[in-house]
Amino acid sequence: MSEFEESGIGEECGVFGCVAAGEWPTQLEVAQVLTLGLVALQHRGQESAGIVTSNGVNPPTYNTLKGMGLVNNAFPPEDLLKMRSCNLGIGHTRYSTTGISELQNCQPFVVDTLHGKIAVAHNGELVNAAALRRKVMRHGVGLSTSSDSELITQLLALTPPMEEVDAPDWVARIKNLMHETPTSYSLLVMYTDVIYAVRDPYGNRPLSIGRLVPCLGRGKSGHPSSVCLLCLVLRYYREVMPGEIVQISKHGIKSLSIVPRPEGDLPAFCIFEYVYFARPDSIFEGQMVYTVRQQCGRQLAIEAPTEADVVSTVPESATPAALGYAQQSGLPYVEVLCKNRYVGRTFIQPNTRLRQLGVAKKFGALTDNFAGKRVVLVDDSIVRGNTISPIIKLLKEAGATEVHIRVASPPIRFPCYMGINIPTKEELIANRPEFKDIAGYIGATSVQYLSVEGLVSAVQGGIPSIQKGERISTKPSRRVGHCTACLTGKYPVELEW
Amino acid sequence: MSEFEESGIGEECGVFGCVAAGEWPTQLEVAQVLTLGLVALQHRGQESAGIVTSNGVNPPTYNTLKGMGLVNNAFPPEDLLKMRSCNLGIGHTRYSTTGISELQNCQPFVVDTLHGKIAVAHNGELVNAAALRRKVMRHGVGLSTSSDSELITQLLALTPPMEEVDAPDWVARIKNLMHETPTSYSLLVMYTDVIYAVRDPYGNRPLSIGRLVPCLGRGKSGHPSSVCLLCLVLRYYREVMPGEIVQISKHGIKSLSIVPRPEGDLPAFCIFEYVYFARPDSIFEGQMVYTVRQQCGRQLAIEAPTEADVVSTVPESATPAALGYAQQSGLPYVEVLCKNRYVGRTFIQPNTRLRQLGVAKKFGALTDNFAGKRVVLVDDSIVRGNTISPIIKLLKEAGATEVHIRVASPPIRFPCYMGINIPTKEELIANRPEFKDIAGYIGATSVQYLSVEGLVSAVQGGIPSIQKGERISTKPSRRVGHCTACLTGKYPVELEW
Amino acid sequence: MSEFEESGIGEECGVFGCVAAGEWPTQLEVAQVLTLGLVALQHRGQESAGIVTSNGVNPPTYNTLKGMGLVNNAFPPEDLLKMRSCNLGIGHTRYSTTGISELQNCQPFVVDTLHGKIAVAHNGELVNAAALRRKVMRHGVGLSTSSDSELITQLLALTPPMEEVDAPDWVARIKNLMHETPTSYSLLVMYTDVIYAVRDPYGNRPLSIGRLVPCLGRGKSGHPSSVCLLCLVLRYYREVMPGEIVQISKHGIKSLSIVPRPEGDLPAFCIFEYVYFARPDSIFEGQMVYTVRQQCGRQLAIEAPTEADVVSTVPESATPAALGYAQQSGLPYVEVLCKNRYVGRTFIQPNTRLRQLGVAKKFGALTDNFAGKRVVLVDDSIVRGNTISPIIKLLKEAGATEVHIRVASPPIRFPCYMGINIPTKEELIANRPEFKDIAGYIGATSVQYLSVEGLVSAVQGGIPSIQKGERISTKPSRRVGHCTACLTGKYPVELEW
Amino acid sequence: MSEFEESGIGEECGVFGCVAAGEWPTQLEVAQVLTLGLVALQHRGQESAGIVTSNGVNPPTYNTLKGMGLVNNAFPPEDLLKMRSCNLGIGHTRYSTTGISELQNCQPFVVDTLHGKIAVAHNGELVNAAALRRKVMRHGVGLSTSSDSELITQLLALTPPMEEVDAPDWVARIKNLMHETPTSYSLLVMYTDVIYAVRDPYGNRPLSIGRLVPCLGRGKSGHPSSVCLLCLVLRYYREVMPGEIVQISKHGIKSLSIVPRPEGDLPAFCIFEYVYFARPDSIFEGQMVYTVRQQCGRQLAIEAPTEADVVSTVPESATPAALGYAQQSGLPYVEVLCKNRYVGRTFIQPNTRLRQLGVAKKFGALTDNFAGKRVVLVDDSIVRGNTISPIIKLLKEAGATEVHIRVASPPIRFPCYMGINIPTKEELIANRPEFKDIAGYIGATSVQYLSVEGLVSAVQGGIPSIQKGERISTKPSRRVGHCTACLTGKYPVELEW
Repeated sequence: MSEFEESGIGEECGVFGCVAAGEWPTQLEVAQVLTLGLVALQHRGQESAGIVTSNGVNPPTYNTLKGMGLVNNAFPPEDLLKMRSCNLGIGHTRYSTTGISELQNCQPFVVDTLHGKIAVAHNGELVNAAALRRKVMRHGVGLSTSSDSELITQLLALTPPMEEVDAPDWVARIKNLMHETPTSYSLLVMYTDVIYAVRDPYGNRPLSIGRLVPCLGRGKSGHPSSVCLLCLVLRYYREVMPGEIVQISKHGIKSLSIVPRPEGDLPAFCIFEYVYFARPDSIFEGQMVYTVRQQCGRQLAIEAPTEADVVSTVPESATPAALGYAQQSGLPYVEVLCKNRYVGRTFIQPNTRLRQLGVAKKFGALTDNFAGKRVVLVDDSIVRGNTISPIIKLLKEAGATEVHIRVASPPIRFPCYMGINIPTKEELIANRPEFKDIAGYIGATSVQYLSVEGLVSAVQGGIPSIQKGERISTKPSRRVGHCTACLTGKYPVELEW
Repeated sequence: MSEFEESGIGEECGVFGCVAAGEWPTQLEVAQVLTLGLVALQHRGQESAGIVTSNGVNPPTYNTLKGMGLVNNAFPPEDLLKMRSCNLGIGHTRYSTTGISELQNCQPFVVDTLHGKIAVAHNGELVNAAALRRKVMRHGVGLSTSSDSELITQLLALTPPMEEVDAPDWVARIKNLMHETPTSYSLLVMYTDVIYAVRDPYGNRPLSIGRLVPCLGRGKSGHPSSVCLLCLVLRYYREVMPGEIVQISKHGIKSLSIVPRPEGDLPAFCIFEYVYFARPDSIFEGQMVYTVRQQCGRQLAIEAPTEADVVSTVPESATPAALGYAQQSGLPYVEVLCKNRYVGRTFIQPNTRLRQLGVAKKFGALTDNFAGKRVVLVDDSIVRGNTISPIIKLLKEAGATEVHIRVASPPIRFPCYMGINIPTKEELIANRPEFKDIAGYIGATSVQYLSVEGLVSAVQGGIPSIQKGERISTKPSRRVGHCTACLTGKYPVELEW
Repeated sequence: MSEFEESGIGEECGVFGCVAAGEWPTQLEVAQVLTLGLVALQHRGQESAGIVTSNGVNPPTYNTLKGMGLVNNAFPPEDLLKMRSCNLGIGHTRYSTTGISELQNCQPFVVDTLHGKIAVAHNGELVNAAALRRKVMRHGVGLSTSSDSELITQLLALTPPMEEVDAPDWVARIKNLMHETPTSYSLLVMYTDVIYAVRDPYGNRPLSIGRLVPCLGRGKSGHPSSVCLLCLVLRYYREVMPGEIVQISKHGIKSLSIVPRPEGDLPAFCIFEYVYFARPDSIFEGQMVYTVRQQCGRQLAIEAPTEADVVSTVPESATPAALGYAQQSGLPYVEVLCKNRYVGRTFIQPNTRLRQLGVAKKFGALTDNFAGKRVVLVDDSIVRGNTISPIIKLLKEAGATEVHIRVASPPIRFPCYMGINIPTKEELIANRPEFKDIAGYIGATSVQYLSVEGLVSAVQGGIPSIQKGERISTKPSRRVGHCTACLTGKYPVELEW
Repeated sequence: MSEFEESGIGEECGVFGCVAAGEWPTQLEVAQVLTLGLVALQHRGQESAGIVTSNGVNPPTYNTLKGMGLVNNAFPPEDLLKMRSCNLGIGHTRYSTTGISELQNCQPFVVDTLHGKIAVAHNGELVNAAALRRKVMRHGVGLSTSSDSELITQLLALTPPMEEVDAPDWVARIKNLMHETPTSYSLLVMYTDVIYAVRDPYGNRPLSIGRLVPCLGRGKSGHPSSVCLLCLVLRYYREVMPGEIVQISKHGIKSLSIVPRPEGDLPAFCIFEYVYFARPDSIFEGQMVYTVRQQCGRQLAIEAPTEADVVSTVPESATPAALGYAQQSGLPYVEVLCKNRYVGRTFIQPNTRLRQLGVAKKFGALTDNFAGKRVVLVDDSIVRGNTISPIIKLLKEAGATEVHIRVASPPIRFPCYMGINIPTKEELIANRPEFKDIAGYIGATSVQYLSVEGLVSAVQGGIPSIQKGERISTKPSRRVGHCTACLTGKYPVELEW
């Protein structure tokens, strides 16, 4: 059954790569696994998707598929079927942070160099991208897109200068790159038959490694020959460390190097990954995201207790926090809203009146569960305040006597320059005059947020001193730090403009 | 604000109509409301969608939009924008039960008669359709589709014979139709400026009436001129009674007639509406579907108690039953699975191995919540057994020590001839040899179903003796009955072939 | 090679049918032949296309394909491939004359009757359609489209009344229909394993029968085993006579009946088929359309001689008339315009200025051939005058000293009620004040039209007293007559409103 | 009316640029004019199309539109409408010669450099592309496509090295490029507010300059205020000389430099432009292409006279040669084939039998014009021999007693490395054994080709010693030479591999 054992890198942030570990060539499945991996990351970017595969021989044949929209629509099945005999590959889903949204800016980016083609998929945003662009162009290189990914490929090709005679030392080139730009990036670099998984020294964006394993079932009669494959599971292996370069090939997983941070700097893993971006089953720093969110709910119940009858959630992302709030407060947890999964985000409404009707139809009120009661409604964040208002109205209209909003994260107040799309400072509700009477503005009985300290303690309290998944000999810094820039305005590195 | 007060018929089964109650003509919004209504019914049919609107004057102008696929894709926004000055309309979403899946078979069906055009939208399946087709064709009528909806329009046009001089008595024609076919149908018939809402004498399919009401918000300063519309809510009014014909027009809602069942027959509302089809916020027979499902979970906990550590759900439809089971059993409720909402049903996989990988990627395991524990997993039904197997494997692989499946409905064993698409008898797991050791077959520690009696008592126990919503003077039979044909093989009427 | 011998009906006006004459079932090719036939008729209708095929057994399976736009786009290749084992079929291309342009109105129309399904494709327009619709609806039939084709199918189903016991006498039903409506129609009616080809008693629309024959080539060595198929040719057989019903089946072609015109009425074949609609290789009334057009050019040279240096054409439809003019006048024929075949009709231009630039780019000037010369430019008709103006300007700009427009048909002045789409009376240039100085209006040196008498003599002068293609024993009226209603206002039958 | 006076570059080979000469900004029309220009060049490339526009200010805003397929389908009208305020632009239609057919390879190519963005559109094929790619990559530049266009942009950016302080001397960079690669290219390079039009020193690909001029019409009354625009005409100005760099801006057209060929080398304009590629109304070297083709026909009549009754053409490209043949031979010219313009190239046929039926249906036989006669059928070339066979069969089947094929160009025997897509040597009929008895192979009575000498004399005989369009003071070499490599195997430069 070794043909199913494929070693793969599972990344929770829009990049995904995989290498078939069994006998090469495999048939078709690497492209399929990439596609499934991107679907699993779809929540991180819905504007475009791309995959590049290699057959792994020298010189390699690369195949590229890119498309706008969701992964399932972006790749025509007939094109996927054409991707035969690919043995490794990398993929990307994109929600534009830099660069306008066009097929051309879609990753992974492939360039041909003197030593063959490399493909790069990048999650994050280079804080010094403008300076690096000027540097590359001063060398006489023209840049055909505005994406960081092209910039990275050209930087890799440029330094040190290439000679036709020597072999390309891609690891040295990657280290050079890491010295040129501190953050933020989780990178996959594919060259012929290897993938380099790279995480910036601050570890701002997540990047993990896993292994696909088959689950076997037994046939009716139970005798061995009727064993059949039931499913494949991506078994979590470990995170790539801040600053680490890991090489993945058919021969296995190998840690090559760790590029250090400046003396005294703490790691700066994005705390909003815990709050919102990551899937609840992700594991960061040794702890499950769902559990951290539940802990945020508990902390919120301590910081902002409420006289009420029931606790509920705005489904689905706030559910762990709501359950945590209920457990801590001792109030019963009920469902008050049911969601119509067919109401898409893209539904076009010609005027505001109908757009709000749309919000209302997205949720139905489960009246019996709260009519005549005081409701604590836990949400994971309030960014603009547009969606919570109609929900509160809906609950009141359906019989709730009080609706107390409890937000399981602190208010966002500052822009992010490290890869997260955030509304302008003016659009953020915490920076607006209405915020002074936020409860009145959105129609709630009361509104309370989790404190920054509460969030940090919920996150850092659960990190084990030695990570569970740790199996490698390198000793990364156990010192804990997180980027809270969007909440506090304290950025982990000095920003260049 | 009277322009927002529109009286509408909310139907939970694929047909939806609405009449603007304010000043005519309204601009554009009737078509939009129809579309939103169909989106809310999308779970009942995803193959095609159609709407027909009328401007309501005499002679009327009808506009038709039909398309394949989901509502949001079926109607191009530019076409919706063209539907100006429509004041009433009916719509339909379709999951083919009779008639092949083609645009041509897509409802509503419109025909021109001597007295103008009528439009018909139909949910259900006429048990004697074959005989009625022969009858219509014997009159020399050619039928251009295989849909019951065309058959109904031709039957309405045919009897009694039309004369150019008289006015068409559509209500008499609808009554004739109801005497020709006992079940199953919930119908909307639009003629010029009225919609007739019709439910068959057995009440097999649901049909409800509601009223769209605006929710008003207050501006910052709170003074009256800053009042603004926050959302529109469909306020439930009442169900159409079995056998009832209700007329909806700009002048209001009027019950015209109730066609009785044969002496001694009970109503036969489809019990699977409670179990699976209806949205959890629907109200049937005076009770909320969510509450009935929760009650099914409680009943299941009584019938099938388990030694276990936690209770959980296969999200999302089984969640109320799982909460009910947890409450009754006293076991803690936790989430064990998170769902990737981007994994669509239509994702094409080239082989079985990858299809099962697909199932696995649809759900992520929330390991911390159940590792090392005995899990009761509540699901709403097991039809073929294909999806529960990989889920069980996933939980065991992630550390569950036992997985007990509890199904909140009895096994389906018989076909439905009244509008529900059910696999063939041979495909239903309850009719297969594997069913004898179902737990072994799907890999569970144990499997237990709710009994038919338990389901019926959970459904009928909650029906109030006088329905809450009742406001009309007619006295429909309070006698309670439900169609359990797919569970018991006992059909409410004799079937014709 | 008998499998290639298929008997087909070739119609030059938007309907096409074919029957495989060899061993049944044939594979796939009937649907392909229908598609090719419709492509050959594409110039008659570009709005939608449809085909219906039958496997020819009892009861038959019919398959339908319909789509908007050109034939090549209307039918997805994968759907064509699904049309296996079809042995006969009919098709239709549509340029809406009655009924709005929607997929629903797209022909052929299929209805299920007590005796099975019939399919109807219709070219023409029933002059008494409104009265017939009322008649059908008085029988209680609802009409779901505004197309004459549905009306015809319902009339065929209605009279005489159907009984389940008897066999359907479709020929009697078709005769009934022909007595109900005098003109205009060329019909194909398919029932199980036969196609009835029907032409109205006035013969207003063309309808011909042909036979597909293989052309065999010889291999390199010339010995018999290397014979290979080179192409298939549709060999013209004969026209369907005015009023005739011809039955086509695998057993051959059989004339069943000729329904006569009222005593004293002449046939009324549309003279504009010769002038513009028909393909130049069509054969009507024993003469080739190309030859008639050349004769119109000769007649025009006699009626409107010109002092000039060269004669040319507005490519491509006016070329035979221009060559005829050149031959008769003795002036040299040259090409003055080259056409860009990629300039489609549907190209969207945001303003008039660019639309006219579009006209200019549709044609290039072949300067060397006319610079410094006086040009006679022959066109086949001037309807609105919009396209000839920029062409004249183009020629003058490029050096023509004079541009004399000679139009090879008389001016259109009246509407057509028999199936031809003509601009409103007000839009026709011949009815507008500018017409008095048409040369000045369009910028020509002079303008002259062919006279009505000249056109009629060019058309009727070439009709042989006994038609070449005639092989059947029936003796249709040799008396010659043509419909010139759009030129003279004299309609062949009294018009009902 | 100065707003309509736009100076544009009209290129006959797939690239087109235009600069609005009136007041800037103009509204919308530059993008429209580019689109119309590409439609006029559509015959040169149907795989993809692209345009890039600039608003012409400093720093400029560039907008790019690219799409697969025909120009009219490639650019959604709503995207064209968004291209507001563009004052100049370049466009490209592509039929892949190097680089696979993907949107990514679609031109124009835009890169950002230290001194801003340049856009490049290229027609031709660099004979030393492989060596140039290595050179660029040795500088550390990664190449993201396989297109020559990207290579050219990177070469322009690379040499001489860019400094942030200096201004970019694009003309010097273009000259550097021209010294690095001798042929073949016709280039448009856009930078901010100018377009550089560049033709390689051998003049292998055509490139011309024109001016769009309005045609004015007079209103009915004839008085001045009713003057209206009738059309826009592209007035031919002159060709770009071999080796010339011409600058086009709102300030006019300016010849900047002529890069010479190596001593002793003749120009090498592609002779197949005259034979087949160019539109008949194009003007090269002072002569109209149509006239050259007519002359080829005359020469063919001298070289290959025939005993026959009529001369005809395979429409439409061979018509001037056929008319020339008729004039020289004294035989009457008639049309024998009519073409169905709706039979597209892309029509998918499932087997060879039906594909040949497709060829047959593409043409109809105009029987009256040749039945019983000996036909000379002039075609412009025979490449594979696949299409002429069924045509000959069609004519013979329809009554031609003899069919003599006369080909107005010599047989193609060698590959082209300068931008023309030619079948492999083995596919070319002139290199195959069947060629010995080509008449027998294709079923003709006889077959004769024009000689290479005859073609060269027909082409060179008409070139005026001083070109008509010449208005600039530079004195380009009057020495005449043409590339006949595909006919003779003599390439104008030594080929590198």
